[in-house]
Amino acid sequence: MSSEPSSALLLGVCDYPEHVSPTLWPDFARQQRELGLAFVRLAEFAWSRMEPRPGEYDWTWLDDAIQVASDAGLQVVLCTPTAAPPAWLVQAHPEILPVGRDGRVKAFGSRRHYDPASPVFREHSRRITRALAQRYGQHPAVIGWQTDNEFGWGDTAQTYTPAARSAFQTWLQARYGTLDALNTAWGNVFWSMEYSDWAQIPLPGQAVAACSPSHTLDFMRFTSGVLASFQAEQVQILRDCSPGRFVTHNFMGFFSAYDHYELSRGLDFASWDSYPTGTLTAIGEWQVMEPEVAVKYARTGHPDITAFNHDVYRGLTGQGHWIMEQQCGQIDWAPSNPLPTSGAVALWTAQAWAHGADGVAYFRWQAATMAQEQLHSGLVRHDGTPDRGYAEVKGIEADAYPLVPVVNRVAVLHDYESLWAYNAQPHAAGMNYWAQTFAYYRALRSLGVDVDIVHPDADLTRYAVIVAPALTVMTLERARHLEAAATHAQLVFGPRTALRQHSGRAQDGGGAGPLAELLGVRPLNFDSLPAGLTQEVTLGEGAHAAWLWAETYAPQDAQVLATYAGGPLDGHAAVTRRAHVTVIGAHSDTLIQGVLGDVLHDAGIEVTPLPEGVRISRRGDHTLVQNWTAQTQTWRGHVLPPVSSLLAPADALHAIPPELV
Amino acid sequence: MSSEPSSALLLGVCDYPEHVSPTLWPDFARQQRELGLAFVRLAEFAWSRMEPRPGEYDWTWLDDAIQVASDAGLQVVLCTPTAAPPAWLVQAHPEILPVGRDGRVKAFGSRRHYDPASPVFREHSRRITRALAQRYGQHPAVIGWQTDNEFGWGDTAQTYTPAARSAFQTWLQARYGTLDALNTAWGNVFWSMEYSDWAQIPLPGQAVAACSPSHTLDFMRFTSGVLASFQAEQVQILRDCSPGRFVTHNFMGFFSAYDHYELSRGLDFASWDSYPTGTLTAIGEWQVMEPEVAVKYARTGHPDITAFNHDVYRGLTGQGHWIMEQQCGQIDWAPSNPLPTSGAVALWTAQAWAHGADGVAYFRWQAATMAQEQLHSGLVRHDGTPDRGYAEVKGIEADAYPLVPVVNRVAVLHDYESLWAYNAQPHAAGMNYWAQTFAYYRALRSLGVDVDIVHPDADLTRYAVIVAPALTVMTLERARHLEAAATHAQLVFGPRTALRQHSGRAQDGGGAGPLAELLGVRPLNFDSLPAGLTQEVTLGEGAHAAWLWAETYAPQDAQVLATYAGGPLDGHAAVTRRAHVTVIGAHSDTLIQGVLGDVLHDAGIEVTPLPEGVRISRRGDHTLVQNWTAQTQTWRGHVLPPVSSLLAPADALHAIPPELV
Amino acid sequence: MSSEPSSALLLGVCDYPEHVSPTLWPDFARQQRELGLAFVRLAEFAWSRMEPRPGEYDWTWLDDAIQVASDAGLQVVLCTPTAAPPAWLVQAHPEILPVGRDGRVKAFGSRRHYDPASPVFREHSRRITRALAQRYGQHPAVIGWQTDNEFGWGDTAQTYTPAARSAFQTWLQARYGTLDALNTAWGNVFWSMEYSDWAQIPLPGQAVAACSPSHTLDFMRFTSGVLASFQAEQVQILRDCSPGRFVTHNFMGFFSAYDHYELSRGLDFASWDSYPTGTLTAIGEWQVMEPEVAVKYARTGHPDITAFNHDVYRGLTGQGHWIMEQQCGQIDWAPSNPLPTSGAVALWTAQAWAHGADGVAYFRWQAATMAQEQLHSGLVRHDGTPDRGYAEVKGIEADAYPLVPVVNRVAVLHDYESLWAYNAQPHAAGMNYWAQTFAYYRALRSLGVDVDIVHPDADLTRYAVIVAPALTVMTLERARHLEAAATHAQLVFGPRTALRQHSGRAQDGGGAGPLAELLGVRPLNFDSLPAGLTQEVTLGEGAHAAWLWAETYAPQDAQVLATYAGGPLDGHAAVTRRAHVTVIGAHSDTLIQGVLGDVLHDAGIEVTPLPEGVRISRRGDHTLVQNWTAQTQTWRGHVLPPVSSLLAPADALHAIPPELV
Ligand SMILES: [Zn+2]
Ligand SMILES: [Zn+2]
Ligand SMILES: [Zn+2]
Repeated sequence: MSSEPSSALLLGVCDYPEHVSPTLWPDFARQQRELGLAFVRLAEFAWSRMEPRPGEYDWTWLDDAIQVASDAGLQVVLCTPTAAPPAWLVQAHPEILPVGRDGRVKAFGSRRHYDPASPVFREHSRRITRALAQRYGQHPAVIGWQTDNEFGWGDTAQTYTPAARSAFQTWLQARYGTLDALNTAWGNVFWSMEYSDWAQIPLPGQAVAACSPSHTLDFMRFTSGVLASFQAEQVQILRDCSPGRFVTHNFMGFFSAYDHYELSRGLDFASWDSYPTGTLTAIGEWQVMEPEVAVKYARTGHPDITAFNHDVYRGLTGQGHWIMEQQCGQIDWAPSNPLPTSGAVALWTAQAWAHGADGVAYFRWQAATMAQEQLHSGLVRHDGTPDRGYAEVKGIEADAYPLVPVVNRVAVLHDYESLWAYNAQPHAAGMNYWAQTFAYYRALRSLGVDVDIVHPDADLTRYAVIVAPALTVMTLERARHLEAAATHAQLVFGPRTALRQHSGRAQDGGGAGPLAELLGVRPLNFDSLPAGLTQEVTLGEGAHAAWLWAETYAPQDAQVLATYAGGPLDGHAAVTRRAHVTVIGAHSDTLIQGVLGDVLHDAGIEVTPLPEGVRISRRGDHTLVQNWTAQTQTWRGHVLPPVSSLLAPADALHAIPPELV
Repeated sequence: MSSEPSSALLLGVCDYPEHVSPTLWPDFARQQRELGLAFVRLAEFAWSRMEPRPGEYDWTWLDDAIQVASDAGLQVVLCTPTAAPPAWLVQAHPEILPVGRDGRVKAFGSRRHYDPASPVFREHSRRITRALAQRYGQHPAVIGWQTDNEFGWGDTAQTYTPAARSAFQTWLQARYGTLDALNTAWGNVFWSMEYSDWAQIPLPGQAVAACSPSHTLDFMRFTSGVLASFQAEQVQILRDCSPGRFVTHNFMGFFSAYDHYELSRGLDFASWDSYPTGTLTAIGEWQVMEPEVAVKYARTGHPDITAFNHDVYRGLTGQGHWIMEQQCGQIDWAPSNPLPTSGAVALWTAQAWAHGADGVAYFRWQAATMAQEQLHSGLVRHDGTPDRGYAEVKGIEADAYPLVPVVNRVAVLHDYESLWAYNAQPHAAGMNYWAQTFAYYRALRSLGVDVDIVHPDADLTRYAVIVAPALTVMTLERARHLEAAATHAQLVFGPRTALRQHSGRAQDGGGAGPLAELLGVRPLNFDSLPAGLTQEVTLGEGAHAAWLWAETYAPQDAQVLATYAGGPLDGHAAVTRRAHVTVIGAHSDTLIQGVLGDVLHDAGIEVTPLPEGVRISRRGDHTLVQNWTAQTQTWRGHVLPPVSSLLAPADALHAIPPELV
Repeated sequence: MSSEPSSALLLGVCDYPEHVSPTLWPDFARQQRELGLAFVRLAEFAWSRMEPRPGEYDWTWLDDAIQVASDAGLQVVLCTPTAAPPAWLVQAHPEILPVGRDGRVKAFGSRRHYDPASPVFREHSRRITRALAQRYGQHPAVIGWQTDNEFGWGDTAQTYTPAARSAFQTWLQARYGTLDALNTAWGNVFWSMEYSDWAQIPLPGQAVAACSPSHTLDFMRFTSGVLASFQAEQVQILRDCSPGRFVTHNFMGFFSAYDHYELSRGLDFASWDSYPTGTLTAIGEWQVMEPEVAVKYARTGHPDITAFNHDVYRGLTGQGHWIMEQQCGQIDWAPSNPLPTSGAVALWTAQAWAHGADGVAYFRWQAATMAQEQLHSGLVRHDGTPDRGYAEVKGIEADAYPLVPVVNRVAVLHDYESLWAYNAQPHAAGMNYWAQTFAYYRALRSLGVDVDIVHPDADLTRYAVIVAPALTVMTLERARHLEAAATHAQLVFGPRTALRQHSGRAQDGGGAGPLAELLGVRPLNFDSLPAGLTQEVTLGEGAHAAWLWAETYAPQDAQVLATYAGGPLDGHAAVTRRAHVTVIGAHSDTLIQGVLGDVLHDAGIEVTPLPEGVRISRRGDHTLVQNWTAQTQTWRGHVLPPVSSLLAPADALHAIPPELV
């Protein structure tokens, strides 16, 4: 939707001219152009400069900043500044401040100090958005918009204000109509949690112990909807005032606090902020990877973690996504913040493109000389001299990366409602939706397969293999949709599939409910394995160790591919297949890889087992081969230096036999 | 007190008919009977169904549920529903909600959301209890009552409401009479904590740092008393309305937040809820066992941990206790929730009986299909088909377990006031009352000894050996009582014995105060050992390693049995004996076992050292031999398969020489 | 300033006669004198006894206590009792209670429950101080005063009351004059944090995420100033009413919450409370030492940790400091509290003297028999019999320790503003100001060097070597001062030197700002190393491993002494030198020791590498050699038994060749 669509990867940078003297602006713009950058992202967080006092707008600085960029040949992406309400607004309306689950008001002094459920704040959000959009919406240099910034950052997606509670009650009334319906859906007969008045319903998470997962699930839906409607108000204004420009939002990696599909509706495409060395530390929270592997990737991040998020965000709209903030040096917010290895910025940029990115904006131009992010690097240092990332960006030939579509035949299904339901009752310390989902994704990537990550209710007709690692929430409609997919594709399901209804309750009649027939199995038991306890699984000749989770099935109309050996599950089915449908009940990386390899083969998908840290990604007729390790690797005769990319027509790569694998 | 006393172990199940369609009830009841169950526990948490709106009772469903059970030949245990006040009551009286130590109100949405010190809630508790008791108190199927549910669960025994503070001040005034007396008892001259007005006295735990342990100790006494009087009101109503039925309460394992002896007064017997795989995780909080041992018992729990709690709860009233909730599959509330190994349910049931249980109710009939406990198993699954525990229960012959008394000659003394005083100032990371007490219990069990766990002020005349592992609080009366016991029994005391007066202050004159003469030693020093630092102890030829704690004594009138070697305590007494009284100052499992072995021998108690995981328990003229490990073990010629029980007349077992030991 | 200056180390004890019966006082005093003690510290925390009811003073007990001490020949140090406001004062003025960062009021029930920013509390503080000082200020036995007790203990230096917020706003207004100035200094354009009204400014630390480090830095300055002015009011009253007596305060080890230089202004000298086994646990919080080393020193503390704090507190005023509370047995507040090894009390006392202490008061006389510190030892036990420390104190010959000045030629620069700025953004888990500073100090001590720890703006003319391990905050004035020092001394700077302006912002123009020319380097990059990742550094022939932190420089006018090998910093400068100025960028104990050794040699300072745990300290013409280990060590021919001291004229020690080193 940008006025002049680019044919190659668009590079840019996040810049904050208001942070430095205007005398520096022209030189910065010139350098940015010389570096090959096509655009700057401006005005993020700048509300206090746009409106220093209530109703008094000051656009002169931003007029100038846009003009300087424009004069230098840079295009401009503008941000609505609502992630940083000014102090005068908080002073006038302290009730807009968010309240945490612990009941404490979060004060002014950093960012995101607003409750999106606050009608007062919503009004001010619309007002500043409209003023900004009216001023610049049709400026020729402006190609697009970012709404707000990183919704939910700082644990702000769920607020516990009186406004939020009241809106939640209203939302529930609209959703359920009657309290009987709500009480049934949530299972409130349990522990006498039945409500006889909508006003009795509390926000969850503040009780003596955990609330009903249905209560939590609806609260997540509600708060996701609040953010979605908050953003939609801005989008509508931007559409009105700034026709022909794209509108996007910059999401974050492995973020769970709202339904990203819901928040992407109405956007032209999704963006995300990619900080590979920092997102690697998500292993701390979500344990998606072994700590001893993580330390090996401390200076690059892990290829599959970064790719996973690219594929998530590309899949939100199916359009080419953007990296709205791309790490280009050390960051400042992880526990430790090692310098990226030489070549990492180029590596990340190439991977982003190969996984569908159409634009990449480095964060940020000059390292901030003040406030919270002083120790975060930019392309240039505090003193304005080029930093390590600068040289790498200079070496990137954007034209080498054409903006052709990514077309894959393998899909991983991803669903935030399943995520919320799963993580509300993980039942096994160390197990969670992300870890389980990522295990399947990682196995696919290690087999050289390109993956779309899509919503389970999306159009699945293009796929030959569909993997649903943790699709916990199952409705009749969804089951019918998957049954249809199974007519043309191989389907693979992981543990806890279809465990719950839309309400979060177990399926009526137990088991996989409406999906039972497709699976051909009845779930029997699940085993939550503490650290130190593993469960052996036998698949053909091979023995695999399951850890954290093992579940078993009574085959109804399916064959047993793998069985448990020893322990309470001894002899029971661990992996089953019925026609096109495979169910994997054991959490075991090698088992998952083995089963997926077979399924892919049966589906006619080429399997290319890859060495550790070597990954291939295809976009259009190009294949990107990357070595993310610190060692030179040889793959199919290609010598891959440490932290390097090799871009070639797919055919060239296939000409050489896979001697390494 | 049940109308027709059973002669054999009574098996039952916890059922929640209100959770499922009434159409299922008759079939469920039939299956329960076929499974050999004698009773169902009903109506727990069902307040919102008994009284959907203020003052409007609905008994029809419960009339029917009881009738269906009765018709099928099942007896019924009913619960007062006060652990789950309905939403309308909270809406009308929000001040009944509990407040945590952090000052935050705990909202509606789970259970136990009430302040037992609230006069308003007390009134409603009496009202609903009376209504329920009047309706069913004389129903022929009703054999007994459970008050409320798991007092203190969810950290609710101590509440920090204005009502609690005011009642605490009144309680103190009644207890001490004058502020001078209180100031002296608490040692308030320390840090100028003296009060000149009862209204000045705060609840403890909310100050800059730790409050006086005397302040804490009295707060624990006060809150224990609040719960006791809260329950006593219910018990009185049940006695009035339901003559001839038993009244009990279902306590929890290793629970510290009130005096269980006090709360058991007025009950016919105590019950507890036994979840062996979950209680094993108490090792996390209380560190009663080595983690590497715990993982070996992940699927059964540890025999001594479960037995310890049986012996505690049997000892509360001295009557045969009940297991009101017996784990029969995977649970859902521990960090990890492994499946019990095959045979575990039968193992637990047999052990419960051998340690004095007269009734065992499995938790629960059908796995809940909604709300907080969906992932907790029952005897039947979500879909109503038998789960793993069902088959095990089917195999249990209740008649094999006659309800004869448990008669032991060895006692372990257990005292909640000592627990509170100990844990208020543990002085050594990793050390606590439970860990110290359990170490002695475990040593006794590993020596094949059956143990009563009783209050130190109980009648001790029947015992030949009395072990007081952590009897920190000592009064003159208690000392006289123990002196009397020493005339007929061997006494063994652990570290910190008699360290404090009833007030929580050190003994007047220091040392063991009124117990000093009996011990024959004067405490000298204690050494709190950080991880990695041990202290050697020499006992005869043997060297033992103490960890966490080592204390030493000046013998006044006692011989030194063991001395420390090396370190600041070098050459000092670690174990002493004066006549019948042994004092052990070092925390060392092997030392404790060695000393206890000698004492038992001297007292004429047969010592039967047992292999790891093999345990024997005697009830009446039967001996139960159990193997809790995953390996076959041979003991005295008996082959014990993994996770198995062998029940035999005691004599048969003794006929074979102890070749294994 | 004491009326009759002592010529040798003054020993005393902290006593609380109000805790025991007056009948014991004469005997206690007699024993104290016999033990060789010269003074008692009295009246700490005794407000509720001095003023039992508002305005009603009771001095009789204190009159008597002082008289008994005086009669026995003991001198008296008195304490203002303001660390423990009585309950009646809190009842009358609950607003004096402190509020934590979490917004919760800290209740009565322990100590330090006051907000120093409270005008009401200030008034009462002045009133009780004046009453006390008027009564005893000119008593012949009274030699000095301690203000309050351990300012900041229990996290009370920063309070979050409305009074504090209001005073902070006023303080900022006075400091900055205009909001423009404040907004610029804090960099508030970042995230729209600009203020348009002083009343908008919140206290930091209560926002969605971290506040600006400048905001935090000014809050630390403000709260430090509040405490300083609070104390200054007391000091003024004491000067008025008690001429000729010293006034001091007892600080704590490794304490960060205020500027100890600021709080020492107006005192005659600084004191601190030395608990070596407890301060060792600062390794837990600050990670100043390897845990495996710490466990070796569990019974003595580590010599360098204790010495470091002595040198800090001596340096606050440059006068001989006091140990106002000296551990003399087991303590009660660390996670584990091992008994000090035999000889430890004498070891600590000797070290305190050698590092400049003029007075040492053991804490405490009799172990408290009640309240919070019952498990803390004293010189005599609960029962009044001598404890382990008693015998050690008896063996100390105070006359052997003459009160000559400590004169050193090596300085370590220490600055609380740099500390606050550093720790506000540590950027590397495990790295902090104390750990970095201590690493340099420890290296110096391991080389046998005596060290002054002084403020960077202090007179530096006496020093030949000046080490600034973590001097993050740099102003033009400070840079000029250091340039002057470099004309006569060797200077060594550690990582992050001069990173920030006084405001907490990065230097204008980046790099080291006004210090750049002196350093001769431009900082390039820093690398924050997670656990498991190290960075090699090459110095001459030697390879060293950096961990946690590595930074690199572009030499402008400096030679490169060491370079990084491998990784993103490969080939870059790790250590540079320009004339007298050395910069060390890598955190590596062995590298630091190596570089410092060379610098000391160049400066003509004798270097005496010492075995692990052996340390030498010089005061006047005496050298104290100590062995802090549990093994006998031989050094330069001297046999040093475990935990022993050897005091000799410096020459005698040098006569023997350093065969061990
Ligand atoms: Zn190839
Ligand atoms: Zn036998
Ligand atoms: Zn020598």
